[in-house]
Amino acid sequence: MLVPNEMPSIYPLGVVGSGQIARMIHSAAVKLGITPRLMAEDSGDSAALAAPGASFRHPDALSTFAELCEVVTFEHERIDLGMIEHMEAAGQIIRPGARTLRAALDKIHQRRVLTAKGFTFAPFAELRGPDDLLDFAGLFGFPAVIKSVRSGGQSDRGSWVVDNQNDALRVMAEQADRELMIEQFQPIVKELVVVVARRAGGNARCYPVAETTYADGACLEIRAPAAIGTRVKTEAMETARAIAGELDSVGVIAVEFFLTTGGLVVNEIAARPHNAGHLTLENAPTSQFENHVRAILDLPLGPTHALAKAAVTVNVIGGLDGVDPAEHLHEALAVEGASVHLYGKRPRPGRKLGHVTALGDDMEQARELARRAEAALMNRRL
Amino acid sequence: MLVPNEMPSIYPLGVVGSGQIARMIHSAAVKLGITPRLMAEDSGDSAALAAPGASFRHPDALSTFAELCEVVTFEHERIDLGMIEHMEAAGQIIRPGARTLRAALDKIHQRRVLTAKGFTFAPFAELRGPDDLLDFAGLFGFPAVIKSVRSGGQSDRGSWVVDNQNDALRVMAEQADRELMIEQFQPIVKELVVVVARRAGGNARCYPVAETTYADGACLEIRAPAAIGTRVKTEAMETARAIAGELDSVGVIAVEFFLTTGGLVVNEIAARPHNAGHLTLENAPTSQFENHVRAILDLPLGPTHALAKAAVTVNVIGGLDGVDPAEHLHEALAVEGASVHLYGKRPRPGRKLGHVTALGDDMEQARELARRAEAALMNRRL
Repeated sequence: MLVPNEMPSIYPLGVVGSGQIARMIHSAAVKLGITPRLMAEDSGDSAALAAPGASFRHPDALSTFAELCEVVTFEHERIDLGMIEHMEAAGQIIRPGARTLRAALDKIHQRRVLTAKGFTFAPFAELRGPDDLLDFAGLFGFPAVIKSVRSGGQSDRGSWVVDNQNDALRVMAEQADRELMIEQFQPIVKELVVVVARRAGGNARCYPVAETTYADGACLEIRAPAAIGTRVKTEAMETARAIAGELDSVGVIAVEFFLTTGGLVVNEIAARPHNAGHLTLENAPTSQFENHVRAILDLPLGPTHALAKAAVTVNVIGGLDGVDPAEHLHEALAVEGASVHLYGKRPRPGRKLGHVTALGDDMEQARELARRAEAALMNRRL
Repeated sequence: MLVPNEMPSIYPLGVVGSGQIARMIHSAAVKLGITPRLMAEDSGDSAALAAPGASFRHPDALSTFAELCEVVTFEHERIDLGMIEHMEAAGQIIRPGARTLRAALDKIHQRRVLTAKGFTFAPFAELRGPDDLLDFAGLFGFPAVIKSVRSGGQSDRGSWVVDNQNDALRVMAEQADRELMIEQFQPIVKELVVVVARRAGGNARCYPVAETTYADGACLEIRAPAAIGTRVKTEAMETARAIAGELDSVGVIAVEFFLTTGGLVVNEIAARPHNAGHLTLENAPTSQFENHVRAILDLPLGPTHALAKAAVTVNVIGGLDGVDPAEHLHEALAVEGASVHLYGKRPRPGRKLGHVTALGDDMEQARELARRAEAALMNRRL
């Protein structure tokens, strides 16, 4: 009785990755009548549960997969950049493109390319050994932040605040198998994110600036619009748009900023739809996922303005108690007006299992709704 | 490299059917973290392209499929009611339930059950032969409407307006292989639809009354809210809610009404999400598809109010010229503010291939947008 689906011989769109971002990209493509092909890592992964999927087990698989697809995009940053550059040179259409992927993957490269063009980052240096540490500390002192040069780790954010030289040497010893960099600690007032969709040729649209609140290294809560002045808002959006242009990005990228007492500095670039843009599913005429699909297939972008005065997303993150939010869907859906998204993942501590978005006329009211639904999912009193 | 997905041994939700309704139910379930199982008719069908699917080729397949699922629902009405009743009696959870399915499938049964409870239909009679015709015409005259008793045909709407006895006899001869009924022709002012979601136990919510415009037997355009007075609005919503209660429906059903010069009469009942509710994807906090999934899994219903002052859906229907809307997605997405849905189907004359929804402050403005995008998809000048 069960037979595999009949699939087209060439897919218009291939998505590498099978987490929640791939799952939501898949839904957005399906809405537009497009049958994407997923390259999954595990058949039980979030996106693989929702879509006909493929598994890979060896590095050659990516180029084999790409041959089946007109356009290939990436959900995550755990990719072999050399292979991507080779594929792009051979004519394969890669989105957002190897240049953007390299900048997103390699924080030193990102900073060199973009500071050379006048974009503002915190002072930074490569950290290959104790000499680099002494040089940097001599100039900028402590506290400082040591970061993994390569982004895309899932178990931690890949950054450590260090208060003195001994702290720094300890982190360097513990992380000896990673390439590291060091950055001046920033007096952060707010963390901001701008999601920008850009087509080949330069047409680009930004979503309103969102504000993120982190706890324990995971992004917990996103609010849009960010509570910032018009000047900062404009600067953040113009900077994000200019960075997308500078990297010649095609698709959705997200630019994370620190708003510091000294102004706006770029923190990181994600070459894909971003957690801070999940609320565009409810709060924009076109979600970041649909605009990503539109952009990478070279289709016109849709409007990105906010529909509500206030929107809040609260992430649903696995706890140490092993609570499965899927078992508490009933209680969460009873929170009138909260929009619940679950990713179909098994619970593990620290794992993103879903998110809840609420819209409202007032930020506190929206936040209260989203938090109540999230607490219900995690079987927790608010 | 390609391996089938690892699927759970028991699915919380099984959907019989693989058209666009199943496709959109699937997306709504995925949003809530649920992996539904589809029972597809053909691997190239709309829903089967977007979701891991199953095919069936013989009638036993339905009960085999149902054994894999905690709850089974139906996208269409081409079902074996006897088998459904047998499965329900054996303890299988069928949604919206055999009682509702029988009423939706059999227009004579529907009318008898509901007129007995005081719901208003047009005068009708079974039409087994010329004697029935003469009896009915003697009482109600012509024009009259001959209808197929059994609903769910896809190639036509299963109804024929007849102006005299010869017309009627011709239709009866042409449709000799169908069970037929005859109904008094109604002086229709408007066609209205109320989509109502109902949980076991009676909790129910209606979406705002929508208004449909047909041409050539296919529903072409839906507007919400309907341009009707408060009294009619209230009567339609209360009637739809009462019918759902009377049939003990669980899930989403749609009640189609004629607003006639003499008042509101029930036209038909669809035991599933309805074309007139597609605009709830953009125009309600909870779409009809999500509320259908919530209701059949006995989860709390979400809010159903309209988000915009005016919403219009225009159906994208295959033309005689064979134009494929997927080839004109570019032009349609250039219509700023129109939300385009394509179902992944191959074009055939009269086939529903997609729909476009536009929201606005003003009905004419929303309609203009939706129609422009639809015309672009069909490569037609407006």
